[in-house]
Amino acid sequence: MRSTAANAELALLLEVAGTPKPGNVDREREYPDLLFEHFLAGAVGASGGLARAADPQGPPVGECFERAVAGMSQQSGGNTQFGALLVLVPLVRGAAGRELSPRTASAVARGTTVEDAAAFYHAFEHVNVTVRDPPEGMEPLDVRRGADAVPTLKKQGITLYDLMELSSGRDGIAREWTGGFERSFRAASAIADGTGPITDRAAETYLWLLSREPDTFVADNHGERVAHSVMTRAQEAREGNPELVDAFAESLVAQGINPGTTADVTAAGIFIALESHGVTV
Amino acid sequence: MRSTAANAELALLLEVAGTPKPGNVDREREYPDLLFEHFLAGAVGASGGLARAADPQGPPVGECFERAVAGMSQQSGGNTQFGALLVLVPLVRGAAGRELSPRTASAVARGTTVEDAAAFYHAFEHVNVTVRDPPEGMEPLDVRRGADAVPTLKKQGITLYDLMELSSGRDGIAREWTGGFERSFRAASAIADGTGPITDRAAETYLWLLSREPDTFVADNHGERVAHSVMTRAQEAREGNPELVDAFAESLVAQGINPGTTADVTAAGIFIALESHGVTV
Repeated sequence: MRSTAANAELALLLEVAGTPKPGNVDREREYPDLLFEHFLAGAVGASGGLARAADPQGPPVGECFERAVAGMSQQSGGNTQFGALLVLVPLVRGAAGRELSPRTASAVARGTTVEDAAAFYHAFEHVNVTVRDPPEGMEPLDVRRGADAVPTLKKQGITLYDLMELSSGRDGIAREWTGGFERSFRAASAIADGTGPITDRAAETYLWLLSREPDTFVADNHGERVAHSVMTRAQEAREGNPELVDAFAESLVAQGINPGTTADVTAAGIFIALESHGVTV
Repeated sequence: MRSTAANAELALLLEVAGTPKPGNVDREREYPDLLFEHFLAGAVGASGGLARAADPQGPPVGECFERAVAGMSQQSGGNTQFGALLVLVPLVRGAAGRELSPRTASAVARGTTVEDAAAFYHAFEHVNVTVRDPPEGMEPLDVRRGADAVPTLKKQGITLYDLMELSSGRDGIAREWTGGFERSFRAASAIADGTGPITDRAAETYLWLLSREPDTFVADNHGERVAHSVMTRAQEAREGNPELVDAFAESLVAQGINPGTTADVTAAGIFIALESHGVTV
């Protein structure tokens, strides 16, 4: 039996190995400065933080996340799996010493504290993460302020869950935290119901997720309209022949459009499939 | 700084990700029953045994190896990294709490005991490993006997190093153990001297190693003549254009010829490059 922590690390590896995964690094597509090997090193580096999250007596979720991000960042590609770790960590703790379910994971999310929020801000100091400007009046809580935002957090008593609620309108990972990790669990079911290599099932699930909701990381980088158009093109690609998926993939890479949030949710889905659906590699 | 254990696990991942690596599973080539994802799961599964090997106060080398093999075997592809772990474990212990060198690794190898040999035999019970019939008179020590061979080992006082000496005439991994891990360290220098993605450097180093010595795993499975012909074809492929390497790769996969020992030594070389040459991902 693979441990919960090992399942989480393996989920990160299987996610990046799935191909074609239009717009994201996969086994066959890289960006010049963001290589497949950066994701391998990111997954291995994150394993210490994931192991702590998998320990029911381990440190608080925020600390586990920060540690996973710090380890993930020990490679020269930059941000490889920040979002994936943000969605994975509450799921891993939700599986620690009990049966993982939307209920256990949501309880972890809702139980986070101001300290967890502070650790989340500290995590941004380890790696450059693309984010949008905060909504008006929220500037003191801009994640790009890193540790400088912590006094405001503490003064206002804002927990990590509160932060996720504040962002859930425009961030797909925050929406997982506040919405019972719904898409992650649906992705897991899709992967579990599939046949053949898991990396193929993961790639299909990625495209399905992409075809259903605009990717919020694309929206952050290129605006809502582009995110919506990518979703529509994902629908067309799924209905067409396999060459259409490849062409879609090439075109997104050429335009530098990277639906990262969808890949993050796919990684979460793979983890749940390994951890609670009995999917074996 | 990545830990020694993490470097070893990452080396396994970078090795399988290197492409083209004629005859072996890589990012772009799989066998129907031996998939890329089996190697990912094998590397993650081996990490517990590797972590113990990296601990100067950890259990004996044989036990670390057996544990790594047991974890590696928790996937349905069968033997993915048995040979790689056999060459990695003494190197990892040779790096534990000190500077890795041919001297420290050889001291680990020479310091092995009868108990280490017994653990080595137990490791064969976790996974099917292709081996040749033993030389005449050595039947009681046939590794395929698994734990049944242990009484003979104990009676004759045979250590793991003794076993490696007995096999070094026809096994490339055993030759590393008895020969100062010479090819592993040379591979590491080649990787460290290269530029560009590490997976590319690893693939080039693999082809270079393959062009210099007949692969003993190919010899085990297909005979010495085939192993020699693969070496000659590797030389030709290296001298030709990149398409020739791809054609060579396709042809080996089609014939089911898998130069596994060369891949194992490549993994060892990647580990040394990460651990002591300051090569960063």
